Amino acid sequence: MINGEKHTEAPIRWGMVGGGKGSQIGYIHRSAALRDNTFTLVAGALDIVPERGRSFGIELGIDPSRCYADYETMFAAEAQRADGIQAVSIATPNNTHFAIAKSALEHGLHVVCEKPLCFTVAEAKELEALAAAGKKVVGVTYGYAGHQLIEQAREMVARGDLGEIRLVNLQFAHGFHSAAVEEQNPATRWRVDPRFAGPSYVLGDVGTHPLYLSEVILPDLRIKRLMCARQSFVKSRAPLEDNAVTLMEYQGGAFGTVWSSCINAGSMHGQKVRIVGSKASLEWWDERPNQLSFEVQDEPARVIERGMGYLYPPALADDRIGAGHPEGLFEAWANLYYRFAMAMEASDRGDAARLAGIRYPDIRAGIEGVRWVENCVRSADLGGVWVDYV
Amino acid sequence: MINGEKHTEAPIRWGMVGGGKGSQIGYIHRSAALRDNTFTLVAGALDIVPERGRSFGIELGIDPSRCYADYETMFAAEAQRADGIQAVSIATPNNTHFAIAKSALEHGLHVVCEKPLCFTVAEAKELEALAAAGKKVVGVTYGYAGHQLIEQAREMVARGDLGEIRLVNLQFAHGFHSAAVEEQNPATRWRVDPRFAGPSYVLGDVGTHPLYLSEVILPDLRIKRLMCARQSFVKSRAPLEDNAVTLMEYQGGAFGTVWSSCINAGSMHGQKVRIVGSKASLEWWDERPNQLSFEVQDEPARVIERGMGYLYPPALADDRIGAGHPEGLFEAWANLYYRFAMAMEASDRGDAARLAGIRYPDIRAGIEGVRWVENCVRSADLGGVWVDYV
Amino acid sequence: MINGEKHTEAPIRWGMVGGGKGSQIGYIHRSAALRDNTFTLVAGALDIVPERGRSFGIELGIDPSRCYADYETMFAAEAQRADGIQAVSIATPNNTHFAIAKSALEHGLHVVCEKPLCFTVAEAKELEALAAAGKKVVGVTYGYAGHQLIEQAREMVARGDLGEIRLVNLQFAHGFHSAAVEEQNPATRWRVDPRFAGPSYVLGDVGTHPLYLSEVILPDLRIKRLMCARQSFVKSRAPLEDNAVTLMEYQGGAFGTVWSSCINAGSMHGQKVRIVGSKASLEWWDERPNQLSFEVQDEPARVIERGMGYLYPPALADDRIGAGHPEGLFEAWANLYYRFAMAMEASDRGDAARLAGIRYPDIRAGIEGVRWVENCVRSADLGGVWVDYV
Amino acid sequence: MINGEKHTEAPIRWGMVGGGKGSQIGYIHRSAALRDNTFTLVAGALDIVPERGRSFGIELGIDPSRCYADYETMFAAEAQRADGIQAVSIATPNNTHFAIAKSALEHGLHVVCEKPLCFTVAEAKELEALAAAGKKVVGVTYGYAGHQLIEQAREMVARGDLGEIRLVNLQFAHGFHSAAVEEQNPATRWRVDPRFAGPSYVLGDVGTHPLYLSEVILPDLRIKRLMCARQSFVKSRAPLEDNAVTLMEYQGGAFGTVWSSCINAGSMHGQKVRIVGSKASLEWWDERPNQLSFEVQDEPARVIERGMGYLYPPALADDRIGAGHPEGLFEAWANLYYRFAMAMEASDRGDAARLAGIRYPDIRAGIEGVRWVENCVRSADLGGVWVDYV
Repeated sequence: MINGEKHTEAPIRWGMVGGGKGSQIGYIHRSAALRDNTFTLVAGALDIVPERGRSFGIELGIDPSRCYADYETMFAAEAQRADGIQAVSIATPNNTHFAIAKSALEHGLHVVCEKPLCFTVAEAKELEALAAAGKKVVGVTYGYAGHQLIEQAREMVARGDLGEIRLVNLQFAHGFHSAAVEEQNPATRWRVDPRFAGPSYVLGDVGTHPLYLSEVILPDLRIKRLMCARQSFVKSRAPLEDNAVTLMEYQGGAFGTVWSSCINAGSMHGQKVRIVGSKASLEWWDERPNQLSFEVQDEPARVIERGMGYLYPPALADDRIGAGHPEGLFEAWANLYYRFAMAMEASDRGDAARLAGIRYPDIRAGIEGVRWVENCVRSADLGGVWVDYV
Repeated sequence: MINGEKHTEAPIRWGMVGGGKGSQIGYIHRSAALRDNTFTLVAGALDIVPERGRSFGIELGIDPSRCYADYETMFAAEAQRADGIQAVSIATPNNTHFAIAKSALEHGLHVVCEKPLCFTVAEAKELEALAAAGKKVVGVTYGYAGHQLIEQAREMVARGDLGEIRLVNLQFAHGFHSAAVEEQNPATRWRVDPRFAGPSYVLGDVGTHPLYLSEVILPDLRIKRLMCARQSFVKSRAPLEDNAVTLMEYQGGAFGTVWSSCINAGSMHGQKVRIVGSKASLEWWDERPNQLSFEVQDEPARVIERGMGYLYPPALADDRIGAGHPEGLFEAWANLYYRFAMAMEASDRGDAARLAGIRYPDIRAGIEGVRWVENCVRSADLGGVWVDYV
Repeated sequence: MINGEKHTEAPIRWGMVGGGKGSQIGYIHRSAALRDNTFTLVAGALDIVPERGRSFGIELGIDPSRCYADYETMFAAEAQRADGIQAVSIATPNNTHFAIAKSALEHGLHVVCEKPLCFTVAEAKELEALAAAGKKVVGVTYGYAGHQLIEQAREMVARGDLGEIRLVNLQFAHGFHSAAVEEQNPATRWRVDPRFAGPSYVLGDVGTHPLYLSEVILPDLRIKRLMCARQSFVKSRAPLEDNAVTLMEYQGGAFGTVWSSCINAGSMHGQKVRIVGSKASLEWWDERPNQLSFEVQDEPARVIERGMGYLYPPALADDRIGAGHPEGLFEAWANLYYRFAMAMEASDRGDAARLAGIRYPDIRAGIEGVRWVENCVRSADLGGVWVDYV
Repeated sequence: MINGEKHTEAPIRWGMVGGGKGSQIGYIHRSAALRDNTFTLVAGALDIVPERGRSFGIELGIDPSRCYADYETMFAAEAQRADGIQAVSIATPNNTHFAIAKSALEHGLHVVCEKPLCFTVAEAKELEALAAAGKKVVGVTYGYAGHQLIEQAREMVARGDLGEIRLVNLQFAHGFHSAAVEEQNPATRWRVDPRFAGPSYVLGDVGTHPLYLSEVILPDLRIKRLMCARQSFVKSRAPLEDNAVTLMEYQGGAFGTVWSSCINAGSMHGQKVRIVGSKASLEWWDERPNQLSFEVQDEPARVIERGMGYLYPPALADDRIGAGHPEGLFEAWANLYYRFAMAMEASDRGDAARLAGIRYPDIRAGIEGVRWVENCVRSADLGGVWVDYV
């Protein structure tokens, strides 16, 4: 139960890069981080336009002297202060994540970064090495991974409630970009421009979300090889895809599919995870996140509800409001930030045992997303052939 | 869109009575009030056990000198400070609401109170007079009323999308107290004890929630007469009911029903509102709050989704995260506290025009809930006969 | 499993009154009766216009000499034949049911009749006496009562799976007559004319359907008293109601509600049955008839599916196609006609024990529907007061 | 509206091969064929055990002299009679379909055959040539294709309601064979034995069902190439698969997926069809067949209901019971048989124009299913590579 009681020593001094006025993603970072008194926002380089960032920072209650024009200035200046920031969140366009994260780690900061962490596995490995050297936490905001019923699913798989895992069916397939909305909407434009978005659009933008959920639920599965077919139904988006299907063979024989799309007309999110085992299946849908379908073969399907006493303890530990009441995306994000804080604190204390026991989307999760996109793109660009997962 | 931008001048200095360590309701008050920088928590009388309240207050970041042993001490002490609290939230058992709210108003505070505001209309009228005399805001936390799709429903009715209103079908019927859980669970015990709960259990505890939603959606409807049948299926709860059905005739000919229950075994919340008009119906269910069913006769039913561009502007103004992503109860509460803050500020400035334009569950909502329960109990105690609504 | 194997000796020679060309109800009677080789259609007085009835009878394969101008001629002529009809189905407007059923019984025929069987309990009792004297079966086509999952629900209640029964929530509330469609549509006109429809519209037309389902599922419940409020939202329908709510107290303390409506705009059928017990609830909805929700308090809700091996044997006995495949209204009707045939055969053989073991909507079901409407109308006409159930 | 009115001249004299006592599939053939007076069952070779077949034939009302020991005897004998059968339905194990269908066509009979029609395209072509030469109708019982809302979907696509077609997502994925049930259940055993089942299990057994639905809805799409991965999670089933994923590129750029499975634990049927266009999507699920989801981008999703007046005329023409009432699989099958009868009659009359206007699963549908399985198996056996569709 998360209800305001303190589970960390003191709030972590925290800054943000990006997430300025009007940014939805900035708002959700702040809502999550500040909710449980585990972070305190004391500095920011919030906007590409310094003055706009400064005035919004003041609006948010940041001391004017700590509203910076850019992240480099912020990292340098804060490093000089005894009360300087200990952690930073990065909510900027994809193509800037790597440089900012690298600089933050070099300045001795814990990092929370939007996905994708970077564009190549090589870059990701560089960040991993930096983080390891500095004993810093890197968190990646796969927000839905913080949902209580994802924890329940993970625990059910671990306890064998599904039997042997056979199929992993994943999708995140919305329809909001069925038309070429980027022609009118600048906020969408960078997503279909390889210079800013990297080597893929929907694979990285949406597909990595359920992929990470599957990693949480099924920590023991390893992709052996995959094949990917991608299409650009809005022609001007090529070479970036607006729809893709990935097939995956796992070591041990399980089989997986991922449908990533932004042209699934009329669908809201369409983020669904179905795990099929030899005895039973689980299915979760992010648009009705408070219910988890548990379907044992030859028995009536069961609707598992968030917050109920019959959940496994690790799931119940994430509860904030009790059963019946709906929780949403904000709670899932807040649960992540809660874990980020506990991990940062454990890391700072050098408490490796405790750190190892905190499950959150870490640098390996960030690497894995980048790796998966790389492999998908390689397969797709070879004409949709099977490639070994490297 | 609510995303962190400031819509008030400065955070309101805020205190709490009740909502101490382990309290779920206290957590949701704080989550909602502190989310958008509209309130700042500076004082508290958080617990019936002073030392426990004090230590939890410190845990929450309240200055130890402003962690008080009881509400009377707090109101008196804060009134002496130049930086004393401007508003207080009351999250204590029902039987204490009236006295605390009265004292708060007498000390010149704005008040946010859990429902029921008090036990009798006479008491409620007394609070109303005090609030009017002191030009203070009284907000009542009918939390679901802050949900974006409730605003959409209100606007649809106002624009005539449903035609003339005919039926109002309301229910809040959960099953968590199907057995006599109060025998084991002290937190439930006071709810079935008339000394603490007042003259009813489920009518007041759950029935008033959808009743208030109907008042928001249908501001022009007035109950003319009603009849109520109530039962105590767990015998030891008598005279308090654990199930009740209320029928209502409205002025103008519309007809309504309310099902209030805590013995609807296996149901989670079962809070549903269905409004039937001469052309179309609306239906909303708090367990899937991001969808609103709009059913025009002779057309396919439509699923209206939270956050979509096709919503009416007053609904979209409440959006925090965009369509597809699920919002939950916390966002609904935060929307209420957001409005409480704007109302308090407008009231303090003497800006009556602006104050009139802010829709929130105010003192009249509080009175109406108490009045409805009074009428229901009167009808039920007469054997389930029709009584004029007074 | 019903799959074409014969469970009766020989098809029953069968005639129809009404159900002529273009009649939907006639089609469903024939589909149900002829499906399993338990009836054979050999005579008919199918239409108020004799020539139209005759030509349609021939189209259906009836010998022209047995296509009659009216029911009296048919009953008289068939009674003279060695191979005359043994049973007749009545699918005519409500106001003719009594006279036709009476005549049929007097001519020694088994009777299947659309509901309502007649307009008054007195009439119904007269039919009951005639049937008893002649040892004839009277079946009433409460079609949904033949659905496999209704049988499952009955069995679950009988075995105590729900605990002690507390609440019976019934509704049949569609929106097809939200507007005064009868002004354009003659087929609807008689329903709102007391001369043809009897003392009520929706109470009798739709409300008796879920009422009978509750009688099947809960054979031991007896109504002690009830109150009913009815309205005519389309003014020209008064005194007949187009919406009604009935509250019922059962002997032993259970409580029930019935919502009957044809002005529930945008709703298809809205026929739902929810039974709440001390341990668990059941809910069934005729628009998704292959699923039954079983909700045990403190456990995940279960979705019971038609045709599955975990169903109780009496339910499985009704299965026609196996789980997964959807069955619909036609199968429910066919199950009833199947039972009608078995009952008629048992009755003809004088096999009282077997007859007693066949559950079908019989004359008592017909009486009970009429009685309930009478009581509802009496209560409503007194202003919505409680009346003893007589 | 189908309601018993005759749309054919006279019932077609009809025989059956297979579908004996206890056969579910035989029951559904008879229910469908005999429902609307378009066929009359006059002969049968119903069982591999002649005496059992004969006695069941008599039970069904077939003249004992026309209850045959095997299909060859039946075809020969009936060909000698002036009133011999005109059409035959084949409901035997898969490996016998080809020989029986061939013999029937050679004896001048119209044929209705269970899918798969045969095992190879070469065989299917042979049947096609025979049918063309004899001007005989060959119908294949893709039962769900007869559902009213499939007709609606077809018409919506034809009228451009979805825009340009982009994605075709198909699945039929149940869980009934998650365990090796064939070890205990002989009725399942032949399905996993290549000698009886042919070159595939789930691809042919379930995958071809939604594939044919897509052909009905999207008559202009042509597969250009496909790739298929198949697995045998129950090891003893190899080389036959119990799970398969097929990806398809269509000419013109649309993309499709088919998930075929019998190990989707806990799922009932899981037969779903989702068609994504540039403007809107359609989704249909056979377990809730009376609803069709129509999702226009940027508008609320709509729930299209069977039987409603807003449906397109070709869909309404299939209606049997009116909106609100649920129809099921039997109605879909009956609609097919209705069309089979009209096609046979038109063919016999030499009315090519009318014949061309009757849409039913014909010999080309049968060929296409076999072709698709052949291509899938070829791809899968090459390791899951793309193969041109031949």
